[in-house]
Amino acid sequence: MSDLEVIRYRPGPEQYAWTFGGRPPVLTVPAGTMLELYTEDCFGGRVRGIADLPSRVCEFPYLNPVTGPIAVEGAEPGDTLALHFAAIEPARDWGVSSTFPHFGALTSTHQTVTLQEPLEERVWVYAVDAAKGTVTYQARNSELAVELPLDPMHGTVGVAPAGFEVRQSITPDAHGGNLDSPEVRAGTTVYLGVNQPGALFGIGDGHCRQGQGEVCGTGVEAAMITTVVVDVVKGVPTPWPRFESDAAIMSTGSARPLEDAYRISQHDLVTWVAAEHGIDLLDAYQLVSQAGEAPVANVCDPNYTFVAKLDKRYLPAPTTYGDVHDRLRIIATDYLAQR
Amino acid sequence: MSDLEVIRYRPGPEQYAWTFGGRPPVLTVPAGTMLELYTEDCFGGRVRGIADLPSRVCEFPYLNPVTGPIAVEGAEPGDTLALHFAAIEPARDWGVSSTFPHFGALTSTHQTVTLQEPLEERVWVYAVDAAKGTVTYQARNSELAVELPLDPMHGTVGVAPAGFEVRQSITPDAHGGNLDSPEVRAGTTVYLGVNQPGALFGIGDGHCRQGQGEVCGTGVEAAMITTVVVDVVKGVPTPWPRFESDAAIMSTGSARPLEDAYRISQHDLVTWVAAEHGIDLLDAYQLVSQAGEAPVANVCDPNYTFVAKLDKRYLPAPTTYGDVHDRLRIIATDYLAQR
Amino acid sequence: MSDLEVIRYRPGPEQYAWTFGGRPPVLTVPAGTMLELYTEDCFGGRVRGIADLPSRVCEFPYLNPVTGPIAVEGAEPGDTLALHFAAIEPARDWGVSSTFPHFGALTSTHQTVTLQEPLEERVWVYAVDAAKGTVTYQARNSELAVELPLDPMHGTVGVAPAGFEVRQSITPDAHGGNLDSPEVRAGTTVYLGVNQPGALFGIGDGHCRQGQGEVCGTGVEAAMITTVVVDVVKGVPTPWPRFESDAAIMSTGSARPLEDAYRISQHDLVTWVAAEHGIDLLDAYQLVSQAGEAPVANVCDPNYTFVAKLDKRYLPAPTTYGDVHDRLRIIATDYLAQR
Amino acid sequence: MSDLEVIRYRPGPEQYAWTFGGRPPVLTVPAGTMLELYTEDCFGGRVRGIADLPSRVCEFPYLNPVTGPIAVEGAEPGDTLALHFAAIEPARDWGVSSTFPHFGALTSTHQTVTLQEPLEERVWVYAVDAAKGTVTYQARNSELAVELPLDPMHGTVGVAPAGFEVRQSITPDAHGGNLDSPEVRAGTTVYLGVNQPGALFGIGDGHCRQGQGEVCGTGVEAAMITTVVVDVVKGVPTPWPRFESDAAIMSTGSARPLEDAYRISQHDLVTWVAAEHGIDLLDAYQLVSQAGEAPVANVCDPNYTFVAKLDKRYLPAPTTYGDVHDRLRIIATDYLAQR
Repeated sequence: MSDLEVIRYRPGPEQYAWTFGGRPPVLTVPAGTMLELYTEDCFGGRVRGIADLPSRVCEFPYLNPVTGPIAVEGAEPGDTLALHFAAIEPARDWGVSSTFPHFGALTSTHQTVTLQEPLEERVWVYAVDAAKGTVTYQARNSELAVELPLDPMHGTVGVAPAGFEVRQSITPDAHGGNLDSPEVRAGTTVYLGVNQPGALFGIGDGHCRQGQGEVCGTGVEAAMITTVVVDVVKGVPTPWPRFESDAAIMSTGSARPLEDAYRISQHDLVTWVAAEHGIDLLDAYQLVSQAGEAPVANVCDPNYTFVAKLDKRYLPAPTTYGDVHDRLRIIATDYLAQR
Repeated sequence: MSDLEVIRYRPGPEQYAWTFGGRPPVLTVPAGTMLELYTEDCFGGRVRGIADLPSRVCEFPYLNPVTGPIAVEGAEPGDTLALHFAAIEPARDWGVSSTFPHFGALTSTHQTVTLQEPLEERVWVYAVDAAKGTVTYQARNSELAVELPLDPMHGTVGVAPAGFEVRQSITPDAHGGNLDSPEVRAGTTVYLGVNQPGALFGIGDGHCRQGQGEVCGTGVEAAMITTVVVDVVKGVPTPWPRFESDAAIMSTGSARPLEDAYRISQHDLVTWVAAEHGIDLLDAYQLVSQAGEAPVANVCDPNYTFVAKLDKRYLPAPTTYGDVHDRLRIIATDYLAQR
Repeated sequence: MSDLEVIRYRPGPEQYAWTFGGRPPVLTVPAGTMLELYTEDCFGGRVRGIADLPSRVCEFPYLNPVTGPIAVEGAEPGDTLALHFAAIEPARDWGVSSTFPHFGALTSTHQTVTLQEPLEERVWVYAVDAAKGTVTYQARNSELAVELPLDPMHGTVGVAPAGFEVRQSITPDAHGGNLDSPEVRAGTTVYLGVNQPGALFGIGDGHCRQGQGEVCGTGVEAAMITTVVVDVVKGVPTPWPRFESDAAIMSTGSARPLEDAYRISQHDLVTWVAAEHGIDLLDAYQLVSQAGEAPVANVCDPNYTFVAKLDKRYLPAPTTYGDVHDRLRIIATDYLAQR
Repeated sequence: MSDLEVIRYRPGPEQYAWTFGGRPPVLTVPAGTMLELYTEDCFGGRVRGIADLPSRVCEFPYLNPVTGPIAVEGAEPGDTLALHFAAIEPARDWGVSSTFPHFGALTSTHQTVTLQEPLEERVWVYAVDAAKGTVTYQARNSELAVELPLDPMHGTVGVAPAGFEVRQSITPDAHGGNLDSPEVRAGTTVYLGVNQPGALFGIGDGHCRQGQGEVCGTGVEAAMITTVVVDVVKGVPTPWPRFESDAAIMSTGSARPLEDAYRISQHDLVTWVAAEHGIDLLDAYQLVSQAGEAPVANVCDPNYTFVAKLDKRYLPAPTTYGDVHDRLRIIATDYLAQR
C-alpha cells in the first residue's frame, strides 16, 4: 500500500457547494481512491476575529460550504458508499465559535419562534495547538482560559438525496448532511446509502472539537485538511447514515422533535443488529436497551441528530458491510505511517 | 469516622411509597446520617422469571416502589438536600428486564398514541455476578449470550414536589423522581432543592445497568441494598436535580419534547457555571458548548430526562455547594473501607 | 323542574383550591344537584388595572384558584361524572389579560428555556358588556379599540387525579384541569372519569373569551357566576375528558409535544365512535379523518390541549352516555327560563 | 373582464412535477393571467377502487404529482406571488381515501419510528355529487354511509424554494408545498414569497374535503379542474405562505414539533397585523390572542402545518397587499358568472 496515489483537491472560492444534490461533480474517482480534501469552515473563512460578527460578514445561503460533490465510479442507487476518515487536520492554528441570532439550542429560532430579542452575537477565537493536541477557550468578559483536548471532526458529510431533492448543506437527514457528530473523527468509516449514480458525496464544517449537542449552534469551527478513502459496498442499501470505528458500530437519526431522532437511530441500530447477528427484533431491542450508548450530536440544526452506538465487544460477529472498515483502516494506517 | 452509626431500613410490603409527596415520613434523621436502605425493583419484585409478564403480575398504580419518604431534620424550602450514594449493591443474583405494552421509545405509548397493536411483551432474566462485576444478557429466541459490565444505579431519587403537588414515582421532574440516569451510581452526590420541611426524600428503581435512554423502557431491574449519606446545604436553592462526581458536575432537565429536557439541563449547567466561576452567561454558554457532555438518561418515562455534564478539569474552582461532595465522599470511603 | 333547588356557593378567600386532589371536599351533593358557583379569575382577582403586573401581585403557587373540590354522592372510580354548564356569567363588568414572564406560546418558557430576556409584562383591561354581548380590546400603545363577541367559558374543570396524584390547577391532563378550551361554554356537558370516591370536582379560570391556543398565555380573565348541573353515569369509564354540546361530541388530549395532544384526542374520538356506532376502528378512523374538526385549546400550559370534534349529524345514533346531555340540557333550560 | 382569455393546461402523463424547484417551467404567463389547470390526485390516479392498495400501485417518489411549475413574468425574489383560487371543481364523480403503511397521525411513521407492525392498509371510495354538494362516506366493514359536504381544496400549492433547494412535493415549508389546509378553497388568495425568478409555482393534491389535521394521512383525494388568477405584488416579501379570503387573513407555519408550526403561524400573523395596522408587537399579540383562530391543517406530513386566522372585522383596515385579493376576486367572479 506504500505507493497508493493520493488525489489532492482544494476548491477555488467559487467551487464550494452549498447543497447536497443539484450540482455536477467536481471530481470523479474510482472506488478505492484516497483523497486529501481541503474544507473551509462553516463561515466560509470570513470570521477571523472577534469583530467579525457572522451575521454581518456572511450571507444566506452562503453558509456551511461543502467540498464536493465527488462522484465515485460504480456507485449506484441501492449501494452503500463507505468513506473512511484517515486524518482530519486543522489547516490553521486557530478556530472560531460564535452565537448567531436565532440559532442554537438556548435561544428562540426561526422554527421555535418567539417575540423576544435575539441573544447577543459574540465571537470566540480559539488557539489551536496541533502538536500539543489542544484548543484554548478564552472567555470574552473575563480572564478565564481553559485548555480543551483537540478532537477534530467533520460536522457535514453526505451524498445527493433521494427523491430528486436538493437540500441545503446545513440540514441533516437520511442523506447525511450537517449531522454535527463528534464521532466523525479520524479512524471512523461513514456509510451512506447511495441515491444518485456516483453517490456525489461532499464533506465540510470541520470542528476542532464540539460539546455534545453543539448547544450554542457552533463548534470550534476550522478549515481542515482531511484524508479520506472511498469505497463502494455493492448491493447493500443503508437507510440512514451509519458509522463504524474500531470499537463500535453506530446508527444515526435526524429529525424533530429530538425523540424522533433518537427513535430513528435506535431503531436503525436494533434492526442492523438483528439482521446481522441472527437474533430477532425484540432480542436485539433488549440488547441495545442495556448495552447501547446514545451520544447526541446536534440540538441546533434544522433537524436534530442522535447517534445510537454499540460496542463491538457485545456483538457476536464484529464485522459488518463485509470487512470494509477493517480494510480501509489498514490502507489508511499504512498511508499515514509513510507520508 | 470509623464509628459512624448506620441506620438500616427495609420497608415491609405495605410500606413502600408510590409517589413523591402526599405521605408522612417513614423515618426522620439528622443531617449527616448514613443510611443503608433496601429498595425493591420497579416491578415490586413480582417479575421473577420469563413467565411473569409485568402487565399480568403488576397492577397500576403499584409500579416503581420507593423506599421513603425520609425526613431530614433542618431541611427547609430554599435549602438543598445532598444525597451521597456510597454504595449500590444488588440484593439478589439476578435482575430482569422486559418490554411492556405501550411503554418504551420504540413503541406507541399512552401519550404518543396510535391505533396499532402493542409490541409483544417479553421478559429477560439476567444473571448478576457481583464478584466478577457482570450481568449476562441471554437472548430469548437464540443462543446469544453477552456479558455486560455491572454498573449499579438508581433510576428513582427525589423529594416531595413544590406547589402542593404529589407525583407518581414513575414521573421525573424538578423534584427528581424517575430520572433513570446511569450517573446516579456509587460515588455520586445528588443535589435536590427542598420544597417541603424535611425534604421527604426517597429512592428506588435500582438497575444493574441500563443503556442510554433506556430505550425499551426498563433497565436490568433489581432490588438493591444502598448506602447513602444525607446532608443539607442551608440557604442554597437548587432549581433542577444536580449531580456531582469526583470528575464532573451535572445538571438535569426532565420534560417533553426531548429538546426541552436538553434545554433545561444545559441552561441549568450554563447558569450554574456562570454563577460559581465569575464568568458571564454567554461566556459560560460558550464553554459548555465546546466542553460539555450530554448523556441522555431516559426517553421512555412520562417526562424525558437529559443530563448536562462538565468535567471539573475545565472549571477554575472545582468545588461547589461548599465542599459537601468531597466531605461526604470521604465519609463514605472511610465507612466502606471499614465495614 | 320549576322547583329545582339550587345550591349557591362562593368560597371565602382561604377556601380556594390550587390543586386537583389532596384536599377534602368543601361541599358534598347528590347527583342531580344544580349548583351556582362563584369562581375567581386566574389571578385571584389581584390584577385590577394596567399597573397590577401579575408577577408582582401574584405569588406562586397561588395562581389559578379553583372553586371546589365538590364531592358527588355515589361517584366511584370507574364511573363518569357529567357536569352540565347551564350558564357562565361574568361577575364584573371588566376582564383582564396579560403577558407573563416566560409564559405563553411566543416566548421562551420554563420548559422551552433559553438565555433570552423575557418579553415585557403588560396588562390589558377589557370592558365587558353582558347586555350587548361584547368585550372590548383596547390597545395599550395606540388608540385601536376592537369589540369582540362575549363568549364565556371555563379554562379549568377537573376531578381528583388517579394514581394518588395531586396536580396543580394550572396543568391539564387526563383528570381535566386547565384545559383552556372555549368549548367549555354554557350548553356543554363535560364528562370526566372518576378516580376518587365522590369525584371531587372543581372549576375555575373563567374567560370572557379567548383565541384558539391562548397564544399569549391568558384569555380575557374574569370572575364568573356559573350554574352547573351534576350527574353520575355509573359503570362507564371515561379515559380523557370529553364534551358534548347539542351539535357535537368532543374528546380532549393534553400532552407535549402538541402532536401528542392531537393524537390522544383523535384516538379517543375514533375509539368512542367505533365503540358506540358499531363500526370498526379503521372505518371510524376514516370517518373522523374526513368529517372531524380539531379546535386547539391551549399551546401555553404545562401540557398542551387539543379537542377532537365530530358533528352529531354525521353519527348514526346521536346519543351517548345514555342521554345524559339531553336530560341535563332540559333541566338547565327550564331552570334558566324560570329564574 | 368579460373577454378575459383563459389558458387551459392539462399535463401529459410525463409532465407532472414531483418537487418544488429543480425543473424548468411548463408554462410562462404574464401577471394577470387566468389559468384553468387540471391536477391529478395524490396517487397519480392509480387508486381507482378498494383493491388498489396505494403501496402496491404507487411507487416512491412518484407521489403527490404537481401541475407546474408555471413561471410568472416579472416575479423576482423579494416579490410576492398572489394566486387567487377562482374555482376548484372535481374532475370525476368519485374520490378516494386510504390508510398507508407508516403514514398518518395515529400510526408510527418513518420519523416517529417504532418496532410495531403497520396498520392495515385500506381504501375507501367516495361518491361525489357536485350538483348536490356532497361526498358520501361508506364504511368498509359495516353498512354505515354518511353524506358530508363537498368542500374542494388544494392540499399542495407552492413555489420554488429559497437557498437552491429542491423539495419533494409532499413536504410543506416556507415555500408552500403540501400544506394540506382546507382554507385553500375557491375564493381564497394564496400569497407566496418569490425565491426564484418567475416564482415557478405549482398546485396539486385536490381534496373534495378533509378533516382538520388530515388524521389518517389522506383527504378525499380527487383530480380537479381548477381556475386560478395569478398576480405579482412587487417589492413585498412574504416570509411564510399566507391566505386571504373575503372574511379573514391567515398565516401558515410548517414545522415539527406541531407547537413550532403553531408558533410560526401565530408569530407571522402577529407581525403582519402589527406592521399593517400601526400597533406595536405586544398589542398585536394581545389582539390575536383573544380574537384569533388556529385551524390546524395537517398532522401527518413531513412537516406539520398550522394556520393562524383573524377575522377582518377585527382589523381597522381590511385591505392588505394593496387590494390584490379584492381585485382578483372581482375578476374571478365576473369570469365565473360568464363562462
